[in-house]
Amino acid sequence: MSSNHLRKQTWLTKYIPSLAWLRHYEKDDFNSDLFAGIITAILFVPQGIAYAILAGLPAQVGLYASILPPLIYAFLGTSRTLSVGPVSIAAIMIASAISAPELQAFGSPLEHAIILAAEGGLILLAMAVFQMGSLVKFISHPVLSGFTSGASILIVFSQLPHLFGVNVKPCGSDIACIVEQSLNLNPYATALGLFSFIFLLMMGKPLTKWLSRMDLRKTLVTGISRTAPLLTVVITTSLVSYFHLSSQHSVTIVGQIPEGLPDLDLFGMFDSANHWLALLPSAIFISVIAYVESVAIALVTANLRNQKIDNNQELIALGGASLASAVSGGMSVAGGFSRTMVNFSAGARTQLAMIIAVALLALALIFFTDQFTNIPKAALAAIILVAIMPLIKIKEIIHTFQFDRADAVTQTITLVAVLVLGIEEGIALGVLVTFIAYLRRSSLPHIAIVGRMPGTEQYRNILRHDVETWPRLLLLRVDENITFANIGFITDTITEKVDENSDIRDVVLICSSVSHIDMTAYEAIASLAESFSNLDIRLHLAEVKGPVMDKLSNMHIERDLHGGQIFFHTSDAVEQITQNNK
Amino acid sequence: MSSNHLRKQTWLTKYIPSLAWLRHYEKDDFNSDLFAGIITAILFVPQGIAYAILAGLPAQVGLYASILPPLIYAFLGTSRTLSVGPVSIAAIMIASAISAPELQAFGSPLEHAIILAAEGGLILLAMAVFQMGSLVKFISHPVLSGFTSGASILIVFSQLPHLFGVNVKPCGSDIACIVEQSLNLNPYATALGLFSFIFLLMMGKPLTKWLSRMDLRKTLVTGISRTAPLLTVVITTSLVSYFHLSSQHSVTIVGQIPEGLPDLDLFGMFDSANHWLALLPSAIFISVIAYVESVAIALVTANLRNQKIDNNQELIALGGASLASAVSGGMSVAGGFSRTMVNFSAGARTQLAMIIAVALLALALIFFTDQFTNIPKAALAAIILVAIMPLIKIKEIIHTFQFDRADAVTQTITLVAVLVLGIEEGIALGVLVTFIAYLRRSSLPHIAIVGRMPGTEQYRNILRHDVETWPRLLLLRVDENITFANIGFITDTITEKVDENSDIRDVVLICSSVSHIDMTAYEAIASLAESFSNLDIRLHLAEVKGPVMDKLSNMHIERDLHGGQIFFHTSDAVEQITQNNK
Repeated sequence: MSSNHLRKQTWLTKYIPSLAWLRHYEKDDFNSDLFAGIITAILFVPQGIAYAILAGLPAQVGLYASILPPLIYAFLGTSRTLSVGPVSIAAIMIASAISAPELQAFGSPLEHAIILAAEGGLILLAMAVFQMGSLVKFISHPVLSGFTSGASILIVFSQLPHLFGVNVKPCGSDIACIVEQSLNLNPYATALGLFSFIFLLMMGKPLTKWLSRMDLRKTLVTGISRTAPLLTVVITTSLVSYFHLSSQHSVTIVGQIPEGLPDLDLFGMFDSANHWLALLPSAIFISVIAYVESVAIALVTANLRNQKIDNNQELIALGGASLASAVSGGMSVAGGFSRTMVNFSAGARTQLAMIIAVALLALALIFFTDQFTNIPKAALAAIILVAIMPLIKIKEIIHTFQFDRADAVTQTITLVAVLVLGIEEGIALGVLVTFIAYLRRSSLPHIAIVGRMPGTEQYRNILRHDVETWPRLLLLRVDENITFANIGFITDTITEKVDENSDIRDVVLICSSVSHIDMTAYEAIASLAESFSNLDIRLHLAEVKGPVMDKLSNMHIERDLHGGQIFFHTSDAVEQITQNNK
Repeated sequence: MSSNHLRKQTWLTKYIPSLAWLRHYEKDDFNSDLFAGIITAILFVPQGIAYAILAGLPAQVGLYASILPPLIYAFLGTSRTLSVGPVSIAAIMIASAISAPELQAFGSPLEHAIILAAEGGLILLAMAVFQMGSLVKFISHPVLSGFTSGASILIVFSQLPHLFGVNVKPCGSDIACIVEQSLNLNPYATALGLFSFIFLLMMGKPLTKWLSRMDLRKTLVTGISRTAPLLTVVITTSLVSYFHLSSQHSVTIVGQIPEGLPDLDLFGMFDSANHWLALLPSAIFISVIAYVESVAIALVTANLRNQKIDNNQELIALGGASLASAVSGGMSVAGGFSRTMVNFSAGARTQLAMIIAVALLALALIFFTDQFTNIPKAALAAIILVAIMPLIKIKEIIHTFQFDRADAVTQTITLVAVLVLGIEEGIALGVLVTFIAYLRRSSLPHIAIVGRMPGTEQYRNILRHDVETWPRLLLLRVDENITFANIGFITDTITEKVDENSDIRDVVLICSSVSHIDMTAYEAIASLAESFSNLDIRLHLAEVKGPVMDKLSNMHIERDLHGGQIFFHTSDAVEQITQNNK
């Protein structure tokens, strides 16, 4: 399917992108989707339960969030392979939001989680209506990456007690208490946790490498490797059941999960209307981050197959998915990185793979919930750890330092702020730092003093080229739009150069890169020209672009330059000025 | 004195700029300064009293603010002619701040005004220490101009009741009350007010025109014209005294002013320490606006004489002046527009003119305060109105619309917000709108599709020039730094052009105007290149500047372009690509 394909879209395929692929669906597509759907379904149960527990919610909340939301996304989303459901980052944000002390007094964590999902869905839909998808660009790459690393580290720490079966009591700075706790680890849980961790690691790269050498089909290799979480759960759960590890050795397990599909409740979440306002800031952060992360993941797979992601339609699809999650008693959802990659690398061609995975999960919920009871939390902690580790990108920060210091600083500040101040505070601070860094850089435009390349009509930077200059003439090129943000620096630079050389009688500002001059800048240029005219120095402009020139003429620039002129080409300026000076 | 002069400054003359002019002071300078000092002193009494009343404070507060502050500024300020003292805009901001309901309960308005002055002074000094003078550039010209017009309109409305001697009672929407009030004007006060208003107008332009025709010296003409406020006050006060207008006809007068110079009280303002926090936001707004307006006025006169204004030293001088005002029982101060212009056009050469004016005012305070008692408020209202009218610049807004719509919208929003929402809210909203407009414009960079000017090596916009192009090659020039703010627009534009023409196999991004590529933009370019490579399209870069190239190499741009190349010149790219396509 070429990228030109989307041009033929109708109103209907724009808002229900699934129609596009349903119309051209073939037998071959189905085989691929069926295989990918089964492989992804295997991940649904352990991840769903694990992320619900990570969020501090009952296990079924994660499973319910894996049913309706991916179905809604399948029909409304523009990505063919994004797997929508509960994700780790959203889970830890939910955990942080619903543990706020002011909420604890009234309502249950589950009620709050459902409100967060509903509110977040409505926020994304509202952003779609007002075409505000582009607003999220202010969550720049460094902020997102620093945030993801920071949140992932928080998740690791939140899972360590589960991995070792430690019952966390608040210790504060009581060292005796901390030592007691760490000695208090449950050896059975620890064994299960470490086994799961190592097993999952071995089933990853080492296994795929080994299998690849055996010349198997790539999707089959992926398929085998991706059963690791299910195998982990099956093995550890069997051990727990067989040796009665839960009842006799206090290994924490998931516990009873209600049988069957979730009930739909369209209006229950509106009962506690006064919590909506208290949860609004968290809902904004969770839904915006979910959206940004989902689109980023969707783009990765779409780029590989030359498919397109429509930002605004994604707002609709993800907003609808989150709302559907709330209606069916689930938590906030997003496109999951590991699940999407499993789905994609297992060969999924369309969202039918997700529909198949959902059908399998629904069957499991109807018939096999009893089997989930004895899943040890230590194994789930190991699954989360293995899934989250690739998201901690300390190397990337070091790499960014070589590329752009401001970006690396933003990334580091965001990461540290997430760990020290909190998740939402970290994002907010990151966005603020991005803003300040951006304005700071904008206020220091690149200004080159130029001269003529001998024998040509080209004018280049005197620092980098061996060019002709004239003692009474200063030629400056500003390489950015001239606005309130940078005019101070520009006039300071010009004045400084003029002060350094008292021979200068003419200054030419070359505006070839200037597409915009604002009012503040105009006033400052006029004021500088007036000040110069008293010193018998003229300020000229050259190579002013058409639209800029029209605006300058409206303002009577000829008068405001106080004797300065406007030249079409820099060479005209040089010719005329050097002529006059003779 | 040439602008080169400042280069020779020492540490001492940097922080005490007055030393520079004291060192070269001559007899001729003194004659000019003496004349200007006398003329400006004439303005000190009516303006000082009028602005104190405008701020809702006892009359002497404005006079006290005209003694120490101009002296401090004389020694520390970098402007030779700026006249520092109470000003109308600061006065109405003080009135608004100290009338806040939450303050009324405790402490007197005077206490609050003194805290505002002290706090504002400390804020400016702190800004000087942290070299934060450039931060105020975010109060762009449109914001400042919209704000000034809005505040001036508010001042006009605040003075109308005084002009007509109406005792303002709150009427709400009670029409009968409003009608009663407007019928209730005091005919004597109205007569005094209208006489003053017309007299002041006649003593302005009409008189100077008439005197100029008589071939008098220009400074003398200015001098005569500038006695208008004093004459107004003398005439109307005499009328009030002679006809007992105050006691018999209820004409409101200034009332008794304490005799003598103000007491210095270094620590009194710290008594009510808990008010400091409540007044902090207002203190920030008042001091920052005072600073911005003062520097703007200082620049106008400095530019005319090729003198320099040092932003950071101005923070010190104005901060010190404001603090000195608080210590001596005065209100917040700034450089006043009308007083500075009077001083400048009366021929002031140095701040000695201000020192002379202050000495005259001190004499008046010691010997003549009894004469101030019967000054009618109607005359002061007329003085304020005539001083404030030139600051209402509706014409300028219309003019700005022709130059830059975004700026004009910002200006209009600020003006309306000042009138409707309040003074501080208006400024804050204006700054916010400036920010949003700036980011919005930054996110829409200028991108030109270029082609070769036949027979040259120059590449120009295909829309504006008749240039050569190649069907399989797309040449795009981005005229701005590529950052998170605009990369979305850039990749969208490129994708759109490629979608429009399925022949395209090579896209060259010409970076001649790009001085900076941030991490977000880099990732997006790499992602686009990968996506294109699957469509058998290559994304190349050309004319990358040295520093940018170094950073790109660090990131392994050659790998991330997925087959695309980096060309030194656009012509290299064209040559090699068209060669390969043959």
